[in-house]
Amino acid sequence: MPRYALKVEYDGGPFSGWQWQDDVPSVQGALEAALARLEPDVPRIAAAGRTDAGVHARGQVCHCDMAKDWAPFTLMNALNHHLKPAPVAVVAAAEVAGDWHARFSARERRYLYRVLNRRARVTLEAGQVWQVQRALDVEAMRAGAAYLVGRHDFTTFRSSICQAKSPVKTLDRLEVDAVETAAGHEIRFSLCARSFLHNQVRSFVGTLERVGCGAWAPEDVGRALEARDRAACGPVAPPQGLYLTGVGYPEDPFAE
Amino acid sequence: MPRYALKVEYDGGPFSGWQWQDDVPSVQGALEAALARLEPDVPRIAAAGRTDAGVHARGQVCHCDMAKDWAPFTLMNALNHHLKPAPVAVVAAAEVAGDWHARFSARERRYLYRVLNRRARVTLEAGQVWQVQRALDVEAMRAGAAYLVGRHDFTTFRSSICQAKSPVKTLDRLEVDAVETAAGHEIRFSLCARSFLHNQVRSFVGTLERVGCGAWAPEDVGRALEARDRAACGPVAPPQGLYLTGVGYPEDPFAE
Repeated sequence: MPRYALKVEYDGGPFSGWQWQDDVPSVQGALEAALARLEPDVPRIAAAGRTDAGVHARGQVCHCDMAKDWAPFTLMNALNHHLKPAPVAVVAAAEVAGDWHARFSARERRYLYRVLNRRARVTLEAGQVWQVQRALDVEAMRAGAAYLVGRHDFTTFRSSICQAKSPVKTLDRLEVDAVETAAGHEIRFSLCARSFLHNQVRSFVGTLERVGCGAWAPEDVGRALEARDRAACGPVAPPQGLYLTGVGYPEDPFAE
Repeated sequence: MPRYALKVEYDGGPFSGWQWQDDVPSVQGALEAALARLEPDVPRIAAAGRTDAGVHARGQVCHCDMAKDWAPFTLMNALNHHLKPAPVAVVAAAEVAGDWHARFSARERRYLYRVLNRRARVTLEAGQVWQVQRALDVEAMRAGAAYLVGRHDFTTFRSSICQAKSPVKTLDRLEVDAVETAAGHEIRFSLCARSFLHNQVRSFVGTLERVGCGAWAPEDVGRALEARDRAACGPVAPPQGLYLTGVGYPEDPFAE
């Protein structure tokens, strides 16, 4: 039973999230429906990151077990054909070992959070950024972000429904960059860790926005972290600015 | 009666184009409805470029005549409030002289055309790019584009319903750039001219795509131009890749 790794891109807007749920559209459901058009009885698929409702992906990775041998390129094209018109696309496919697992073999998840910092309402970027109207101080947000990098108890920054066994995680990177785009001033938060807690990225960004607009001092982020108390967190940033950009494995299954 | 210049951004997807039409949504109609919420009897507005159905703008410019004196910033915010939820936003506003005209005072129109050149279906960029699946040769398209720059009779590249008096125009710039984006390989056509004929940019891009995929030689573009015959044009590229990015005036009304 050959196993295939799939790299998947999607617009999270119309979905209740990655995870299959009864009666609501999910990305997993869309992919499983496409797989069911190729073979009967394809087992449930597993993904590296179970993104929430409205969260996007450029580089989600999942795996599927097929009965037949498929050329990866053929499998990708057949899935993309059957995924129409859902805004989900398989952008790479590769055969992997039978013990390779999209979730458990992953060593690193990378996320991007996009804030469009301008006054005028968003038009072309609607549903793809968090618009913040007040000018944000990037240097202050960087200073606040510095408190979060490293190994910490992130109880403050996990949702109350988070199922992870431990709140202790190592955040390898949280960069804050200002970029001029066609739509105006954009602030990009780039994050990397072996794994993240539920709502961790959106809790970070919502808290750093408080710093950027001057409501919090950068050192208040350190205090919130030390509090180990969900109530010490800033507001949770909305889902539409968040992108799962990539997943790292000991060996890249999609390397040519 | 003070006159105001407005710089307008919009997602052209839900509109039948810039121009007001009975019974169908237009960008002009959305703006005029918002103006009508501010003052009764605002005269019809005029724009620099009458974009077609599905064509976007980052820097459309129009003007309106108001009865009251409005602080431009207040006018912009009030219009943006009343434009909700249409994907149209006023991104700048300025008071201009009574003889200033968004269309007739314009000296330059700038357009961008975005081609996403990848195999997998488009998800997050749906409605905002033209997806071309076959690999395009950027150098060949540049060589083809070189035939179009300058003063020419562009009869081949104007739609049969074009109302311009003369097909002779001067194309100041047609650059072809390859850019790596989060979605993959993107090809951007940047154009600049005093004015354009109806469907001229999309006729150029559709013809250059024929060159990029190898169906035409670059010099076939020169032959098509010389033919001065609409039938010699390549296919017209679809609207969703096209953006009116800016309009040039002798003096920038929005300069701070």
